[in-house]
Amino acid sequence: MSSSFGTLFRISTFGESHCKGVGVVIDGCPAGLPLGEEDIQPQLDRRRPGQSSLTTDRAEADRVTIISGTENGRTLGTPILLEVANRDQRPGDYGAMADIPRPSHADFTYQMKYGVRASSGGGRSSARETIGSVAAGAVARILLRQKLGLDIVAWVSSVGTIDASGVDPAALTEAEVDRSPIRCPDPGAAERMRRLVADLKQAGDSVGGIVSCVIRNVPPGLGEPTYDKLEARLAQAMLAIPATKGFEIGAGFAAARMRGSQHNDPFVNKGGRLGTVTNTSGGIQGGISNGEPILFRVAFKPPATIALPQQTVDFAGNPVILAAEGRHDPCVVPRAVPIVEAMAALVMIDMALRQEYRKTWQWSGEQGV
Amino acid sequence: MSSSFGTLFRISTFGESHCKGVGVVIDGCPAGLPLGEEDIQPQLDRRRPGQSSLTTDRAEADRVTIISGTENGRTLGTPILLEVANRDQRPGDYGAMADIPRPSHADFTYQMKYGVRASSGGGRSSARETIGSVAAGAVARILLRQKLGLDIVAWVSSVGTIDASGVDPAALTEAEVDRSPIRCPDPGAAERMRRLVADLKQAGDSVGGIVSCVIRNVPPGLGEPTYDKLEARLAQAMLAIPATKGFEIGAGFAAARMRGSQHNDPFVNKGGRLGTVTNTSGGIQGGISNGEPILFRVAFKPPATIALPQQTVDFAGNPVILAAEGRHDPCVVPRAVPIVEAMAALVMIDMALRQEYRKTWQWSGEQGV
Amino acid sequence: MSSSFGTLFRISTFGESHCKGVGVVIDGCPAGLPLGEEDIQPQLDRRRPGQSSLTTDRAEADRVTIISGTENGRTLGTPILLEVANRDQRPGDYGAMADIPRPSHADFTYQMKYGVRASSGGGRSSARETIGSVAAGAVARILLRQKLGLDIVAWVSSVGTIDASGVDPAALTEAEVDRSPIRCPDPGAAERMRRLVADLKQAGDSVGGIVSCVIRNVPPGLGEPTYDKLEARLAQAMLAIPATKGFEIGAGFAAARMRGSQHNDPFVNKGGRLGTVTNTSGGIQGGISNGEPILFRVAFKPPATIALPQQTVDFAGNPVILAAEGRHDPCVVPRAVPIVEAMAALVMIDMALRQEYRKTWQWSGEQGV
Amino acid sequence: MSSSFGTLFRISTFGESHCKGVGVVIDGCPAGLPLGEEDIQPQLDRRRPGQSSLTTDRAEADRVTIISGTENGRTLGTPILLEVANRDQRPGDYGAMADIPRPSHADFTYQMKYGVRASSGGGRSSARETIGSVAAGAVARILLRQKLGLDIVAWVSSVGTIDASGVDPAALTEAEVDRSPIRCPDPGAAERMRRLVADLKQAGDSVGGIVSCVIRNVPPGLGEPTYDKLEARLAQAMLAIPATKGFEIGAGFAAARMRGSQHNDPFVNKGGRLGTVTNTSGGIQGGISNGEPILFRVAFKPPATIALPQQTVDFAGNPVILAAEGRHDPCVVPRAVPIVEAMAALVMIDMALRQEYRKTWQWSGEQGV
Repeated sequence: MSSSFGTLFRISTFGESHCKGVGVVIDGCPAGLPLGEEDIQPQLDRRRPGQSSLTTDRAEADRVTIISGTENGRTLGTPILLEVANRDQRPGDYGAMADIPRPSHADFTYQMKYGVRASSGGGRSSARETIGSVAAGAVARILLRQKLGLDIVAWVSSVGTIDASGVDPAALTEAEVDRSPIRCPDPGAAERMRRLVADLKQAGDSVGGIVSCVIRNVPPGLGEPTYDKLEARLAQAMLAIPATKGFEIGAGFAAARMRGSQHNDPFVNKGGRLGTVTNTSGGIQGGISNGEPILFRVAFKPPATIALPQQTVDFAGNPVILAAEGRHDPCVVPRAVPIVEAMAALVMIDMALRQEYRKTWQWSGEQGV
Repeated sequence: MSSSFGTLFRISTFGESHCKGVGVVIDGCPAGLPLGEEDIQPQLDRRRPGQSSLTTDRAEADRVTIISGTENGRTLGTPILLEVANRDQRPGDYGAMADIPRPSHADFTYQMKYGVRASSGGGRSSARETIGSVAAGAVARILLRQKLGLDIVAWVSSVGTIDASGVDPAALTEAEVDRSPIRCPDPGAAERMRRLVADLKQAGDSVGGIVSCVIRNVPPGLGEPTYDKLEARLAQAMLAIPATKGFEIGAGFAAARMRGSQHNDPFVNKGGRLGTVTNTSGGIQGGISNGEPILFRVAFKPPATIALPQQTVDFAGNPVILAAEGRHDPCVVPRAVPIVEAMAALVMIDMALRQEYRKTWQWSGEQGV
Repeated sequence: MSSSFGTLFRISTFGESHCKGVGVVIDGCPAGLPLGEEDIQPQLDRRRPGQSSLTTDRAEADRVTIISGTENGRTLGTPILLEVANRDQRPGDYGAMADIPRPSHADFTYQMKYGVRASSGGGRSSARETIGSVAAGAVARILLRQKLGLDIVAWVSSVGTIDASGVDPAALTEAEVDRSPIRCPDPGAAERMRRLVADLKQAGDSVGGIVSCVIRNVPPGLGEPTYDKLEARLAQAMLAIPATKGFEIGAGFAAARMRGSQHNDPFVNKGGRLGTVTNTSGGIQGGISNGEPILFRVAFKPPATIALPQQTVDFAGNPVILAAEGRHDPCVVPRAVPIVEAMAALVMIDMALRQEYRKTWQWSGEQGV
Repeated sequence: MSSSFGTLFRISTFGESHCKGVGVVIDGCPAGLPLGEEDIQPQLDRRRPGQSSLTTDRAEADRVTIISGTENGRTLGTPILLEVANRDQRPGDYGAMADIPRPSHADFTYQMKYGVRASSGGGRSSARETIGSVAAGAVARILLRQKLGLDIVAWVSSVGTIDASGVDPAALTEAEVDRSPIRCPDPGAAERMRRLVADLKQAGDSVGGIVSCVIRNVPPGLGEPTYDKLEARLAQAMLAIPATKGFEIGAGFAAARMRGSQHNDPFVNKGGRLGTVTNTSGGIQGGISNGEPILFRVAFKPPATIALPQQTVDFAGNPVILAAEGRHDPCVVPRAVPIVEAMAALVMIDMALRQEYRKTWQWSGEQGV
């Protein structure tokens, strides 16, 4: 069940990087939704390798097929299997490393957990596993947009020590994000990031980065205290993405340095509903959305696979010098953008569906404004 | 189910700040464990209000009672109900605020979600709700210590802009943490933090802070890819604590600014087992523990309840000036230390129990070293 | 988690027969519901021992207390703890049997599973554990009645070889069921059953029986294929009641002997909605309610605790003659009636809440009639 | 999540009868298990249509493909996707019935639940959905056999009013069951059943039946009170199979007519372990296996699809005469045998894995014998 996520809109993913295919089963998708492969493919295209010179050369078309759960172009309410075949399988690339656990990769921990591991390509810990999340997230986003007008936009806000500036989360569009291959909407920063990544690829090194995300038009009331608080499930969702090391919402770690009088978001009458003057909280209070945009940031480490030689030991404990071969990204954040959006969508759709019964089954008291 | 956490060691908490009691049911605790109220009480004492002049004056003894699940001082393997009566109920304190949603508190969002809210004291969003987590976490810690030798120590590493330094996570003890009421093991920083909090209490303001945590003697192999990665469940657990705004593991957000050649943790032969030279990863790779200490940090915002007057609006949208009465903490991090430890313990015990079947049901391949 | 049941309306029960208390946490109950202890107590009174000469003499008042989750007589939407203190604790009654696993009781299996067992009274396997189910079920029934007009009536249809006849499930009321202490609405059968049970009590023996149940005014569309089919969850719920040995819905085992042409329920226009001419199916098709009354039956074995001497062995394998002391029921079905109703209510409320999101999130196609 | 089953060995099924494929994802299968398609195929062959003249003529090869979760013929511990392509799609067969809900089929209830339905072949309510259960169950059986020596044999014990006799559950083998196409090991009864089914096929009618099942070599201690009692999960699993109407364990409904002195199973020393003299209980007490064979029976209704004309109404409420075309089985029990075994295996593997942590984490007290 650890490859499953969600309660009412529940996904179960499968697939290693070098088996026959990867994908996801979605259980609980509302029926009657017009859905074709063309609705899902664009997000997979944003995620797939080989999009630009910045990413790995592994050339996968990553074409999705809807195996079940729709008929005549509409969902049936039954489980939807979305599958992507693995075409470009080159296990040989990794053969030399079979006896050496790559530093900061999951070879060692998979071996310790399962007693075996996929012989190549990182198996289930590979970023390829995220195809299932992205495909399911694409379906979730369609539902959220059509039923709530909710939209989700993520972007690269940092690569190494280069930070974007001047980005307006209230107005940012996916098109603006995708204008640069690095997916940073600040053109100046984007160009510097691009050059840094290109240099590091050349140098055989890698670099980390930060993906920021905004969720707009969120109705108040989503999130389930105590352990399914909205920020708690977002945090789980983001830390489940490979290579992530941190999550913060609203002011995040900066909030730890603030006074209450600075941090608090006073309420204001926003034309018939209660809103807040500021949004230091990032759209959530007490685990429940307050109607303001949800804003969070996710830290990604530099990819562990680098070409620079590393002094390490093999599984037997013998010292070796490792210099990775094979295809790899020097920086994951451009491709992480659609993954962050997808995971956010999966959290939001589940919370939205879970809130639904309360609308008709509760004895409503007085409401705000 | 949103007040439940865990799969095999599963807890379900209950209780508002002003009802008859708060607590937790633990389902799945192994049988035969010697367990009395005296084993649980110390952690509740570390969490309760009124411990020092730094915390709220609400005087609760917070005595725990084991209602079910043990006999003759040992667990039966059946659900354990741990209950703490609410004695010091003063709903009147909050009466004046009934029509005003307190800024950055959960009054508004609870109202929007449930159509009603506890009239006073924050209800379920109150820090009082964490009693259940702390009580259950105390049981989890005993199991982890006795069966794995695993221990967990959290401490205050920052209050506002004051940062602790010189803390050694490999050696730090609970006694050292508890030496100062602020629970910061750096004596110089602790004294400056104490003075800051006292000043802010006087001034009617509040301040945020950071709690750091180390988990030692973790066996490799714990954590369940994909969505139950160890860091993902830790992130969920921490962001489920009231007032948290961020989580980072290992180098965390700093990792986003690093190169792979700096960040990677090469392996080394540590006397018959594979360890890592550095521990930038914070003890986890690919969602699974690698045997090194797990290190993470949690950001807490400044408490929303402040005595300074705030310009806001009431539920009807009318402008009002709010100056909070009632008891409140100017800084939550000292009392958050046992909560962070408890949530960490709840994650670890569940992961440890979930891994157990693999030891006997897997066909073991070759192991490291 | 094995003491929990349900997805959106989720209960977690606790308590052995001789600890401080037993009860339940309800998580997910809609907010604003008027709820007091007096709404729950009547069903506990129908379940408690000592109601009549037919049942065990154990004299428990079984008074329920609402510990959390309500304020000013209404639910808050937060976890509701319902607790019943254990007053009449007489562990000594069972002392002589500590070393002897009682035949067809759970002493042996609890010992094998947990390595320990409650020293007396059956611990968690005691019928006393059902208090939590009945209390939670009482809340579920109120919701179902008020929001859907749904009602649930169970009755004793057999005791030993005595079968009730002439009972009309379409019209039967709880008052009619409770008219006789045996809870059989056929007065002639009830009197014969009463005499049989009294005779067996005298003789130190026990007898089994069948509880039938009808659920009326069920909206079509409840039940979640594949594994949460309505009949599948009802079956689980009923077989989770102590002493049950069978479940059948509609024609049940008799259906196995029928032809399709006899068994099928043709549709008919029932004034603007599709209904069925017959109801051999018992109100469910393909795991989903069809709007007709749901009808099922539950088989209960004779209580295992009998006063007649039994040749068996002790835990060490030594032959012994066992003659049970202590209080026990010669027949459980009269007290099982409210338990069956409660478990049915818990299944129905969860299915009703789980269906709710579909009403607003689906693109409705054409509907029947 | 309603198409998922199990906690540690968790399956999620997908697929309608006329989409591209059907199958299952298994999450939690222990790693290192030798597993190929040839290990799974035989059980699918026992389930598939067109095996004999007794079953539907739909000719599906039902070849299973392992898409993920294995490498070099061994499981990786990661999700295993088992997929069967749908080849023989003939939606046209059902075209005439699109506007008519077939009596006692799920057309009407799916329409009411989802607002749409698969236009043909029963969609998700079709017996074709059970392919996923059978495939996953085949893997579970291999694990149970290799690690526990546990085996599971089901057989047809009744068709209509014809009952098998002389079957010995302690010795029965799969080969003996499969000797007749009706899967009844009593040759005389088998021949009479075969003739009855052939006659009914000719007559355009159908008939119900009973499948019995024995699980042998079950270790004591499996099953999770309260709501996951072993018999409760078996009941859920069996009632989740299409066309089932009843479940009974041990003496089942006959137990309701017995005295305690008849029904009780006294203990006896069976060479170093406690066993029972009789096994009226069917191998389970208090929800936990006692080490004796588990015996249960499942009632199947006659298939709803019959060729005989039926007076019913269409979705608009207009009277129509329906005479089904298309392929259908006159009796499902022969093909239900492997489905019952598979569902039993899925229950047992999950219970076995869930018990595992107790062996190392419990403080063992004294054990039996």
